[in-house]
Order: sequence, then C-alpha cells, then structure tokens
Amino acid sequence: MAAAAVTSNGGAAAANGGPAPGRLASVYSEVQTNRLLHALPLPSVLRSSFAIVDGPASSAAGSPDEIAKLFPNLFGQPSASLVPSAQPLPTRPLKVGVVLSGGQAPGGHNVICGIFDYLQEFAKGSTLYGFKGGPAGIMKCKYAELTSDYVYPYRNQGGFDMICSGRDKIETPEQFKQAEDTANKLDLDGLVVIGGDDSNTNACLLGEYFRSRNMKTRVIGCPKTIDGDLKCKEVPTSFGFDTACKIYSEMIGNVMTDARSTGKYYHFVRLMGRAASHITLECALQTHPNAALIGEEVAAKKQTLKNVTDNITDIICKRADLGYNYGVILIPEGLIDFIPEVQKLIAELNEILAHDVVDEAGTWKSKLQPESRALFDFLPKTIQEQLMLERDPHGNVQVAKIETEKMLITMVETELEKRKAEGKYPANFRGQAHFFGYEGRCGLPTNFDSSYCYALGYGSGALLQSGKTGLITSVGNLAAPVEEWTVGGTALTSLMDVERRHGKFKPVIKKAMVELDGAPFKKFASMRDEWAIKNRYISPGPIQFSGPGSNDSNHTLMLELGAQA
Amino acid sequence: MAAAAVTSNGGAAAANGGPAPGRLASVYSEVQTNRLLHALPLPSVLRSSFAIVDGPASSAAGSPDEIAKLFPNLFGQPSASLVPSAQPLPTRPLKVGVVLSGGQAPGGHNVICGIFDYLQEFAKGSTLYGFKGGPAGIMKCKYAELTSDYVYPYRNQGGFDMICSGRDKIETPEQFKQAEDTANKLDLDGLVVIGGDDSNTNACLLGEYFRSRNMKTRVIGCPKTIDGDLKCKEVPTSFGFDTACKIYSEMIGNVMTDARSTGKYYHFVRLMGRAASHITLECALQTHPNAALIGEEVAAKKQTLKNVTDNITDIICKRADLGYNYGVILIPEGLIDFIPEVQKLIAELNEILAHDVVDEAGTWKSKLQPESRALFDFLPKTIQEQLMLERDPHGNVQVAKIETEKMLITMVETELEKRKAEGKYPANFRGQAHFFGYEGRCGLPTNFDSSYCYALGYGSGALLQSGKTGLITSVGNLAAPVEEWTVGGTALTSLMDVERRHGKFKPVIKKAMVELDGAPFKKFASMRDEWAIKNRYISPGPIQFSGPGSNDSNHTLMLELGAQA
Repeated sequence: MAAAAVTSNGGAAAANGGPAPGRLASVYSEVQTNRLLHALPLPSVLRSSFAIVDGPASSAAGSPDEIAKLFPNLFGQPSASLVPSAQPLPTRPLKVGVVLSGGQAPGGHNVICGIFDYLQEFAKGSTLYGFKGGPAGIMKCKYAELTSDYVYPYRNQGGFDMICSGRDKIETPEQFKQAEDTANKLDLDGLVVIGGDDSNTNACLLGEYFRSRNMKTRVIGCPKTIDGDLKCKEVPTSFGFDTACKIYSEMIGNVMTDARSTGKYYHFVRLMGRAASHITLECALQTHPNAALIGEEVAAKKQTLKNVTDNITDIICKRADLGYNYGVILIPEGLIDFIPEVQKLIAELNEILAHDVVDEAGTWKSKLQPESRALFDFLPKTIQEQLMLERDPHGNVQVAKIETEKMLITMVETELEKRKAEGKYPANFRGQAHFFGYEGRCGLPTNFDSSYCYALGYGSGALLQSGKTGLITSVGNLAAPVEEWTVGGTALTSLMDVERRHGKFKPVIKKAMVELDGAPFKKFASMRDEWAIKNRYISPGPIQFSGPGSNDSNHTLMLELGAQA
Repeated sequence: MAAAAVTSNGGAAAANGGPAPGRLASVYSEVQTNRLLHALPLPSVLRSSFAIVDGPASSAAGSPDEIAKLFPNLFGQPSASLVPSAQPLPTRPLKVGVVLSGGQAPGGHNVICGIFDYLQEFAKGSTLYGFKGGPAGIMKCKYAELTSDYVYPYRNQGGFDMICSGRDKIETPEQFKQAEDTANKLDLDGLVVIGGDDSNTNACLLGEYFRSRNMKTRVIGCPKTIDGDLKCKEVPTSFGFDTACKIYSEMIGNVMTDARSTGKYYHFVRLMGRAASHITLECALQTHPNAALIGEEVAAKKQTLKNVTDNITDIICKRADLGYNYGVILIPEGLIDFIPEVQKLIAELNEILAHDVVDEAGTWKSKLQPESRALFDFLPKTIQEQLMLERDPHGNVQVAKIETEKMLITMVETELEKRKAEGKYPANFRGQAHFFGYEGRCGLPTNFDSSYCYALGYGSGALLQSGKTGLITSVGNLAAPVEEWTVGGTALTSLMDVERRHGKFKPVIKKAMVELDGAPFKKFASMRDEWAIKNRYISPGPIQFSGPGSNDSNHTLMLELGAQA
C-alpha cells in the first residue's frame, strides 16, 4: 500500500524536485516498485559474445513473384540466428530510433529497455531516440533521446506511455520522404518498429525504401499485439497476448465463481480480438467456460446467427435439465464479422442508408434482400436501432460498436421464451453482459512477457548492429527456460502475401487466425462438451510475479510448441 | 498453468473418482492450489487457552428505549473480549449451524473454515452444519454436515459456493417457528449468521426469539459486505471490502495506464456500492483518479445532476488547457440515489406511470412538476427511455439499471459541445464507459481478508462456546500484525436504531456511510485538486499473495485507525 515516487537510482524514493522526464515524477505502488527491481533473465546467447549465422534464402507466404517485385532489394533474405562465438560483433556506437505503432500491449516498454541495454552493453556510446506518438513521430521528427533516467522507470511496467503510440501509416511518397529526412537528420543507423501485422509490413516497406535510396538506416520489426494474430513458425507469439489473456482469465474465473455461488446468472463475456479469436480460445483453455465462440469455426461452418443462438440455447436447456441455471459464455468481439449473412446485411444497409430516405414506417426495409430482411427482423430492436443510428463519419454502420454479448443475451432470451412456451425449458434465464477490454491491454506484463520483450529488444539491437534490415526479431524455443531461448531474425518478406486493392498489389502479412486443426483449438474442441454440461471452471487468480506458476506462459503457445498435451 | 484436481489430503492430486462433495472434484489453478496451502496466522489469544471478559453494559446507536422494548432479553449486553487465561473454557462438543446471507464477499469461506477449525481444536466432537442457500436453508432445514473433506477445498478461495447464499429473510411468525423447528431438530447450540446490516439485524431478532423461547440455541453475527458499510468502533471493517477494492483498483490502474498511453479517452468507471461510496473512495485513494464522485458529499452539498456534470466538465476543460485530453473518473453505482432532484423525478414518474397513459406526443410530461420536467428534459434520450421502459414487477422505475457512467458521459459531452461552440473547449472528448462489479466480489481473498475472516470464524466459535448470543464477532487492532489482533464480540443491539415503517418501529443497523469529516474522505479531499490536474495515477497491479505489500490492508481502514497519515 505504501506508494513512493520513482527515481533512477534504485526504485522508489522521494522525487528530487527537478524536471523529470516521463514517469520519473510518478508515484508507484509497491507492486510497481517491486517490478521495477525485478531482474530480467536473458537468453544465454545474449550474455556473452555471439556471431550471426544466416540460413538459406527465404521466399514468401504467398505470391513470391509479386513480393519479389515489391521488394527488389529485400526479397529472399535468409533468416538470421545468433550463435555463441569467441569473436564478438565489431563494436561501434550506433544511432538507433524506436517507435511504438498501434494499440498497446503489455511489454512494449521492455522491448525499448532491451534495445537500450543492448546498446549500452555491446555498442557503448550509442544513442537511442524514441519517436513520439507512433509513426507520425518519425514523419514529423518528433522524438526524445532515451537516456538511462528516462528509460528506467518503465522497466517491467505496462502501457506505452514512455513514448506513446499512434495509428498513422507511412504510405505516400511524401511520407516516405519525410521518414528519409528524419533518418538523415538524426543520422540513424537503425530503426526498430514495434507493431502488429500492418506496422511490420510498413517497417519492411520502409526498409526497402531506405535500401533503395542507399541509406545506411536499417529497419527491424518486433511482433506486438495482444490479439495474438501475428505469429509464424519462427515467431511463435506476439508479445502482450500472454498478459492480456491472464488478466481476462482472472476476471472470467472470478465471474465463474460468482455464477456458481449465485446459481442464477448466465454471464456473457465479450473479449478483445476483432480479427482472430485467439484471446477467447486461450481464456477458454485457462478457465473452462460452458461455451466459447470461436469466430474462425463459425465462419468455417458457415453458421448463421440463428445457429449460434441455438447452440447456446441448447446448452442452457441441457444445463437446466441438470439443475444448473447459471453459466459463463465467452464471445470474441469480432464474432459477427465471421457470420456471412451479417456481413451481407451490413453491406446492404450501408448502401441503403447512403442513398435512401429511412422512413419511420419502415418501407425502406423492402429494399433489403429477402434473407437480409429476415435477419434484420430476427435481430433485437436495440441492435436494429444501433445499426440504423450509430454511423461512422463515412456513414457506414459501426459494427465495432455493436455490443455482441448484449445482442446474444436478447436473442437467447427470445429463443428460451419460445421453448418455455413449448414446455421445453423449465427455468428462468437471467443474462449478465460483460466486456473485458481496456483493462487487459495495459496491465503490468507477466514474467513471460517481461522476459520475452526484453529478449526481443536485445535481439533487435543485435540484428541492427550486424547490419540486418527488413527482418522481424524472432525469439524461439519458448517452452524452455529463458537461458535456452534462441534469438534471431526472420525476413519480413517471408511472412507476406499480396492482396489486390484498388487494382494494385499490396503486400500484407496475413493475420494468423485460429487454426481449426491446430493443437489449441483441438484441445478446446475435445473438452468443450464436458465443460458445457459439467462445471469444470478454473479460477486462475491474479497474476503472480513470484512463486509457483509465475514463469509459465500460456496454453496456446505451449500447445502450439507441442510442450503441453 | 498446470491445473489439478483437488483432494483433502494436501492440495492438488488426481481426484479419486468417488463421489466428492462441493468442490472436491474441481480442477484448481496453480494459484488456487497455492492458496489452499497458504497457512493462516491466528491472533495469539486464539492460539492457547483464553477466558472471556465482559465490558460494561451497552446501549443502542439510537432510540435505546425502543430497542430495549424490541429486544427485552438481549438489550444492554456487554461487549465480550477474549483474554489469555490459564483456565480454558469448559470444553464439550457443540452442534453449530452456519449460514451465508446476501451478496458474496471474498473471505466468506474462511469464516466457515475458522468456525470449523475452532470446533476441532477447542470443542472436539462438535458438529458443524452449513445451511444451504442462505436463510431459506434454515427455514427449510436444508443443510450439509460440514466435514473436513467438505470444507478443505474452500480454504482461502473466493465465492460462497460451499453452501451458497440467499436473500430471504426470516420475518414472519411462521418463519421464526420454522427456524425454531430446525434449531430443535438439529439440536443446535449455536448459529453463526454471516451477512450485512440487514442479516445481522435479523440474526439478533432470531437470537432474541430463541432466548424468549428458552431455547439453548445462541446466535452470533459476522460482518460481511464488499461495500464496507457495516462497521463501527469495535468492528473496524466488513470482510470482502479489502479484496474487492484491490481487484477494482488493479483494473482502474490499468485503465489509467491505458488513458495516459493513448492520450485521447476519458474513462468513466462505475463501481459497486449502492448505499455508501466507500469502494469508490478507497479505489480513489489507491489509484489517484482525476475525479471521484462520493455520493455522501453530493447529498450533503445538495448537488444537482447539472452541478455534478459541470464539476466534471470543468476538470476536463482545465486538463485540456494543460494539453491532457484524457482522464479517469470514478462513479459509485448509487450516485443518483444521492441526488435529491433525481429522487423526486423518479417518485413522480412512478406515480404517473402507474396511473396515466404515456402518450407518444409527450403530453403526459405536463404532469411532472416544473423542476422535474426540466430535469427530465436535461437527461440524455437513452436515459429518458430507460426510465420509461425498464420497470420492475411493481411497475417502478429501476434506478439500479441506469448506467450512470454512460449517462454522465452523454451529459458531459453535451456540455462540452456547448463550451466548444463558445470557444471555451478546444479539444475532442471521447468517453469510455466501464462497470467493474461482479469480477470483484468473487475473487480469491487477499491475505488480509483471508486472515481477518479466519479470525472472525474462530472468534465466533469462541463466543458460542462461552454461551454468548446476540453479539457480532469483532476482531480489532487491525493495524498491528495478526498475532496482536484482539478478538471479541459486540452486542448487536448496540449498533441499532429504529426506523418507523408502516406505523411500526423496526430495528435497523444503520449503514456506515462515508463520513465527510472522517480521515479517508479528508485525505481524498486534500489531494483531489492535485489529482484532477496533474497525473498522479498509481497502478496497484494484481493482488500479490507473497512479497512486499502482500499483507497490507487498505487505506480506508488504516486511515480510520489512525495508522496512516
């Protein structure tokens, strides 16, 4: 409970009153202070001198010819691995920039700390610049020089507030030129871009551009997103996923205990993850809910909203027969994006709302296709209104604003009333809606995310020092203790495919979706019938930073690595 | 991450497949298992033989004459204190019942474990019955015999699912007779009622009734409620408050980090606490938000909804001038119950909605008093609709269903638009609504709540063994280490006053509201102007069960005890 101001000379002490950058004047809780002092283990290869070994030439995730054309200088680069070596990398001071791009993820600060410490250790006299507010900071040359005092208070702390983040993209020729000017002005040897799939694609385009301009500035990416949808064989996970899932799972576990104690509520919990349902799947594996909807499965089975509703209703009825009138159901926030008929309805609505008058009497509805009309009428009134009223600046329906968990509660309620009238459901349904979102993406990083990010930062420094560009830092062998983790880099172009947009090929790193034949989903699928009916709830409790379990990562990662059955 | 089934012989192991009561077949997380093995310290007075010393005769919190008439057998009982003694209490096997009443609070299971262990230790051969589903379990004689195997898996675990709870009351003569029959049937020497203010009043009425019937069954109460509004000099806190506030504060701290990192959202966080604002105040002391509304202050200052809105808007404008377009604001869920004009409007609405036709054109509104009409028109449309549509079975407006945080966001938004038009607000306001509720009341109890509840249970056993009735167990000196805590009981009648309902005097334990001249509020009031403008956010992080800070309780308690400045 004791709170103290933070200083750079060893944790909490009275602030000295002088101007303090960033968090230096902040007041820290005991847990924050304790985390500040938490020592970060490093993979053993980073603890003494190493060399970098290249693998074979790489290709692309798809359309290699197109990717080769888009990245003439970078396509085909080999993967790089750090290996112990008596002969250290040639050491000289570097000027390096770092930028945080997109939504926050626990551990981002540790990537920066890792780069900083790497440069201090292996390239003495180096300078690290933090671009402020995301890629816009690069374009506007808005930055802070990251000193030991500046960086210190952020060790093992959540958030992105050391330099903040942003969602701008470097896209137009003018913007690339601005980035070039900044790199030249700061005389940058390297730039580390910490971001998700889009940001890493952007990082690679920037690396290609710098190379084409014969600039010395190298670009390295780092895999960040709590959604867990940026990963591949060599990059086993994105940072932040572990912490966010553990925070959500703690709360889900608490809600389960509540459900079991009260015996009268069905809790519908919406979780982050617009594109992929990894978070929902991981939280299900951690907590054993009565149902968890996986968007990818809904899409693969071409389920309708009625199917989804019926599946939940069936479970509720079965449980009622067993005397259980409570439960917990997990829902990914992107669910309705996976339902084809909903997409169709929304496209039609956008068209109608853009061109037609929406009359009170509802004659406008006759413009909907019959299936869409039927679906619209099937939706709860509040959702119909939301679809009509909540529009983005372009006049489009804001799917993101739809509270899917409340929608499902209303639809399940309606279906249960019908069944009750038919004598098929003897109980009373009471739904409770939850959304666990913001509170998860800014928590204090777990030991796993703290160590993983620190290694990513160190690795990024090593790749830049060895002159690499266009790689994403890859830290592997994550089922082993930190000492045995591998460190290297993977060609960003090898993760890419192309998409045709406005008649042009655009490179994209495909989001890693939940694989229905992957180990995490298969484990879930093998257990869910039991979880549905029996009460197998697990309460993971709060994240513990010491003691048993504190160094474990997550089920998804361990199952994918084959380290868990 | 490793999860294992729970057995009674030492934590996690494979379930033996036989029929297992309660949670015995449950799968536990590592943290749960670890908590199961967490040793519970006891106040030293409970560790060897003790005697019970009575204090002076007690009176009542108010209307002593009326209370004396309502409790002719119990009024005026002295407080009891346990003191070390070479001469132990006479030991004989007891038959004791225990019941959980009302909403869940972390630590309830430990009270039961404490009673169980006390009986095992000091009254060998005793039997403990757990009444199922709250007071209804007493009336229906629905119970489980609590054995070592039954109780074991619930040690230091959240929830109330060992025997579950309920909100029924023992009120009518028939219901008292049912309770008498149960007590006689089970040959009960004592009954422990774990509950809030109402349940403890009820416990005292039951104790009085049993005494008047010359029954041997004694009744002891225990102070439970996360809301923290059952406390007095001798009962310094109710259990569950500590854990719930720490869980909410963790999430608030995360949201603050998010706000500071993103720089563009105002998070409006609604917290539990319908009657008193202790939770909001404690969370404010733990996290330092930009604003926290305390219902008791709003009522004392007779603030209107417009005042409340303007105060928040002023802070947002001041912060905008400083370049901060983000923030965090805490709101107690009972806020609008504290605003007199809202109460008046709701009373009028209930009257109108009960008797009149509500026409689309809105002519019904002319039946509202002018001030109420003005207030109704001031409310956001969604709230107007909620007031009109969401009704309880008696046709009354459901104030509890109003999402106060969303209401305030809309009202602040409207006010800011006005100021913007006047050139007084240069920024863009984006509000995010949160409700932290269920996930807090069922968490794993903190070390403080675990120990406090265990001592409450032990103390309840001691009071029953010494033949006490009509007392609430009181554990004191809570700023000291557990060994030095005091244990005793306080006459429930001494906490009571009367209220006149339907022409009759009813005894009530007055809810302990936030005292505006109490140390916790004064500390908050002395800091809040700084917190409003400067960013003094603290992120308490997840509850840690070991290491620094893990044995601290909360600010409210320490400030009230004078153990914190």
